[in-house]
Amino acid sequence: MQTVALAVDKGDIELGPNVLSGVSLPAAVVHEGPLMHNVEWMQRFADAHGARLVPHGKTTMAPALFHRQLQAGAWGITLATAPQCRAAFAHGVTRLLMANQLVGKANMAIIASLLEQDATFYCVVDSHENVRQLGHFFAERGLTLSVLIEVGVEGGRCGCRNQQQILSLAEAIADEPALSLVGLEGYEGVVHGDNPESGVRVYAQYLVDVAVELEAAGRFSQTNPIVTASGSAWYDVIAEAFRGAPLQGRFTPMLRPGCYVVHDHGLYREAQTAVMARRPDLQQGLEPALEVFAQVQSLPEPGLAIIALGKRDIGHDQLPIALRRYREADELLKPGLAQPLSVAGWEVTKMMDQHTFVRLPEETQDVEVGDIVAFGASHPCLTFDKWRQLLLVDDQLNVKERLVTCF
Amino acid sequence: MQTVALAVDKGDIELGPNVLSGVSLPAAVVHEGPLMHNVEWMQRFADAHGARLVPHGKTTMAPALFHRQLQAGAWGITLATAPQCRAAFAHGVTRLLMANQLVGKANMAIIASLLEQDATFYCVVDSHENVRQLGHFFAERGLTLSVLIEVGVEGGRCGCRNQQQILSLAEAIADEPALSLVGLEGYEGVVHGDNPESGVRVYAQYLVDVAVELEAAGRFSQTNPIVTASGSAWYDVIAEAFRGAPLQGRFTPMLRPGCYVVHDHGLYREAQTAVMARRPDLQQGLEPALEVFAQVQSLPEPGLAIIALGKRDIGHDQLPIALRRYREADELLKPGLAQPLSVAGWEVTKMMDQHTFVRLPEETQDVEVGDIVAFGASHPCLTFDKWRQLLLVDDQLNVKERLVTCF
Repeated sequence: MQTVALAVDKGDIELGPNVLSGVSLPAAVVHEGPLMHNVEWMQRFADAHGARLVPHGKTTMAPALFHRQLQAGAWGITLATAPQCRAAFAHGVTRLLMANQLVGKANMAIIASLLEQDATFYCVVDSHENVRQLGHFFAERGLTLSVLIEVGVEGGRCGCRNQQQILSLAEAIADEPALSLVGLEGYEGVVHGDNPESGVRVYAQYLVDVAVELEAAGRFSQTNPIVTASGSAWYDVIAEAFRGAPLQGRFTPMLRPGCYVVHDHGLYREAQTAVMARRPDLQQGLEPALEVFAQVQSLPEPGLAIIALGKRDIGHDQLPIALRRYREADELLKPGLAQPLSVAGWEVTKMMDQHTFVRLPEETQDVEVGDIVAFGASHPCLTFDKWRQLLLVDDQLNVKERLVTCF
Repeated sequence: MQTVALAVDKGDIELGPNVLSGVSLPAAVVHEGPLMHNVEWMQRFADAHGARLVPHGKTTMAPALFHRQLQAGAWGITLATAPQCRAAFAHGVTRLLMANQLVGKANMAIIASLLEQDATFYCVVDSHENVRQLGHFFAERGLTLSVLIEVGVEGGRCGCRNQQQILSLAEAIADEPALSLVGLEGYEGVVHGDNPESGVRVYAQYLVDVAVELEAAGRFSQTNPIVTASGSAWYDVIAEAFRGAPLQGRFTPMLRPGCYVVHDHGLYREAQTAVMARRPDLQQGLEPALEVFAQVQSLPEPGLAIIALGKRDIGHDQLPIALRRYREADELLKPGLAQPLSVAGWEVTKMMDQHTFVRLPEETQDVEVGDIVAFGASHPCLTFDKWRQLLLVDDQLNVKERLVTCF
């Protein structure tokens, strides 16, 4: 068996070829089968709805995953900040949708540099002040910045709160020679209320209506202006609204889910269950691809295991879930022979920076210090950002590639 | 004014010389004055109590800070994991106290490699199983591993739960030729109860008593064995217990506070207030040195500011606190001229991955998109680990150095 030398996560380590032997744990693991299934599934979904897929890259900030998404057909990558755009561009992503306001001269300078290198770049605006700042900065540089107006909701996050603000902002943009209004942007994830589904449908229709109105008023500076929305929870509802007659053939609908690429064991699993219930025509759905492997460090009292896994290793918006357990393999163990042991009834009760507390069922007998436990978490963005690299593994847990992140 | 080119945080950026102009925000900032004050203050404290200071390095994982701590007199650096030890050693730290169990063959291999390079290394044990595993692994390598027995508390984290377990584990260690028992370790931060101060005092005395008993029984394999405990909340109580007659001159007391180095605006500020109340003889105390600077991104509704700062940028165990505000400086503005604007009544109400919601008082009139806000947080460990580098600044906010982290 060969040893695969990999530069590292959390240091510089020689990684073994299998997560159960020779890999320093904790380690974040991406399962290749579910990953590629998700990449292709969401691309087919977008294609079937006549929308471009522009996956949100902030989730992973892993260029190796961006390239898999682009290769499967994604138009470009969505990002949240100027440094994220720079990192993606440095790794060969040339179409960048920054679904956020561009604020601060240093951040504007980063984007100016990308434009000078012929990046295709869009960002969003929602205030006269920011429009003036951007207009001034990019005029001085002799560059044109393409912007989308952000359409928000009362009590939401960023974004214009009503049609009048949107129209007024469109006029302000028209007054800035260095700015070009190329579309509308929204994020339905901040729509709240007693009936979120109905709220999201109303919001999606509002986006469509405003887009049509602005186009009729000649406010867009390009044909087929962009209309974009959607995270990973309501992308089906947004896609349906964008598929309708008013947009198709006259606009460029763009969907921006991000978490779908590795899915999760929490919030997004619940959200996907709801998607599948709304859309019984969809096949298979998404599969969780991201896990963190860690070892039992101490069994100090009956019914208590302390795991060498902390808040620095895995998302903890919700407490992680123990999925499977393995005995640490001998170096000579043939990969594929390890059979998972039970974690039935194991419950994570608390996390600290470097430790996780697990309550074990009374009947647990066979657990040992050194046992390897695979954990799933909610909200993959906040697991990815804990790692400088993650390990891509096959279904035998052999390490195939390290996925470097650019946080 | 010169431009200082620095490789980067979250990408590769040219940083300007001042945080208020030319630095891509958000950015994590360490104030040099308070930092050096804290480094020296805690060293004086340990010296005055006859203890070695072995600051916990997991807080910052910034070798440039480790070296400041060592230069001020620290004996070595405490760490939590094998990859952290490797990172510190790679940056010239040769005395490593891993205040944690060493579990897993890949992690043991990392430590074996450090021992072969003549590192001074200690880790802790609390189970017969782990003692057997370590004994077997290091014997095969022909190395001797120095271990401390971890003394835990019922309902706590790791560690032996009673004296009988400790004595039995000491015998097991004596049976492993590759292991050497060099002391006792505890962590008072997991002592709970109605009266934590009294609980910590009882626990500290228990550590001392057990150490004395094990020494009398000839269980330690070196003279002046180590007795170590203390985080950043109860270090005064531990130091007092270690200062007494039973240890001085016969043992090597070691204190391991970590968060003190940059202090905080939350939990540890409260803890330090309690320390100063318990010890009116101490002068000045610690000063918060870590802040995250970010910009107002949107003012979408009266009374609401959205800041370009997220869970990926700052610790959020508790919501961050707005401390000061500045108008973004013109590039030509002389550093030092910027006067802070008020953030009186500003309240962080919610955080998302890349956004922070701030409720503004009704009378707020002068806030602008682009305004720079300095935020403080609780629990510095979980702010440091969000950054690949932090900016060390002088009292004019000029960037003096980048502090690279090794998470």
